[in-house]
Amino acid sequence: MNRLTLRSSVPLLIVVVSFLIQAQPKAAGPQYNKSGTLIFPSDYREWSYLTSGLGMTYGLSGATDATNPNFDNVFADQASYRSFLKTGTWPDKTMLILEVRGSDSKVSINQGGHIQTKVLSVEAHVKDAARGGWSFYAFEPGASEARLIPKTRNCYSCHEQNGAVDTTFVQFYPTLSETAMQHGTYKAGR
Amino acid sequence: MNRLTLRSSVPLLIVVVSFLIQAQPKAAGPQYNKSGTLIFPSDYREWSYLTSGLGMTYGLSGATDATNPNFDNVFADQASYRSFLKTGTWPDKTMLILEVRGSDSKVSINQGGHIQTKVLSVEAHVKDAARGGWSFYAFEPGASEARLIPKTRNCYSCHEQNGAVDTTFVQFYPTLSETAMQHGTYKAGR
Repeated sequence: MNRLTLRSSVPLLIVVVSFLIQAQPKAAGPQYNKSGTLIFPSDYREWSYLTSGLGMTYGLSGATDATNPNFDNVFADQASYRSFLKTGTWPDKTMLILEVRGSDSKVSINQGGHIQTKVLSVEAHVKDAARGGWSFYAFEPGASEARLIPKTRNCYSCHEQNGAVDTTFVQFYPTLSETAMQHGTYKAGR
Repeated sequence: MNRLTLRSSVPLLIVVVSFLIQAQPKAAGPQYNKSGTLIFPSDYREWSYLTSGLGMTYGLSGATDATNPNFDNVFADQASYRSFLKTGTWPDKTMLILEVRGSDSKVSINQGGHIQTKVLSVEAHVKDAARGGWSFYAFEPGASEARLIPKTRNCYSCHEQNGAVDTTFVQFYPTLSETAMQHGTYKAGR
């Protein structure tokens, strides 16, 4: 293809590339406001699902209601999830979301156990080397942004001391724990 | 752009389009073997997550262990999920996956409640007009394909009688039930 043909192709290429780019998923990675707050990732329910727990009592989202304890749903942005499957650890710009929901029982035809109800809180755990590594953010219900949780808070030290992989609780993520063990990134005894 | 330039552009276009198509998600929709068995959708964990229940006792995957009841995780293929958000119902070729996992407690630093463990079974609910509408398939552990569950089985009549939207249990899917109510597709009292 000569230079003239290449230049003539540009308009058609722009049309094709524009169309295909529109069909691509959104760019991954955390987005911030100028003030440094993290922008709420409104599409996180379409990210890769890691696991759910019910009434887990190790953290902020622990059970406070013995009858209807809270569910925790965990999601990772898809690019970081796929990277983890290849490497056994999280790349820079990883975002993990912890969605806490209430629970209920005996709803519709369900006669036992627990189903999920409304969102109670959304927390983000973000790996960003440009901002000092892993950080936590807690979104108020309906908030479009969240401030950094100060690094002196005990969520940081707890994750540091107990997370199986890179300060994250991969021991609770059944599709990732085996991958981490195979890659030698899983800290034994956690 | 004249016809000659268009023809000359084809090689460059092929390179660009091939590259971008590789970056696209896999085609949605059920895939079958020649014998009519449903091919296991191995990427379902990257689909859109709908909800989880613990120890629900309305169906096959109900609790059989009061100490560590089973979790149910439900996923929808992403294209159908997005279509539901726009229309309040499922398009043809929808695939829903029910993943049943065991549970455990007092693992690592978790002192209460339940975490998810290994997969016990995977079931598919598939809407395919070319095959008579909604069908169920149950994958044995590790199976790459599954036969149709006969339409005389009570899973069909139960979903027909109790599903809030189009034979599916949208009453248990918190991100979709409100959408269905707004679109008038939610059957009252279910």
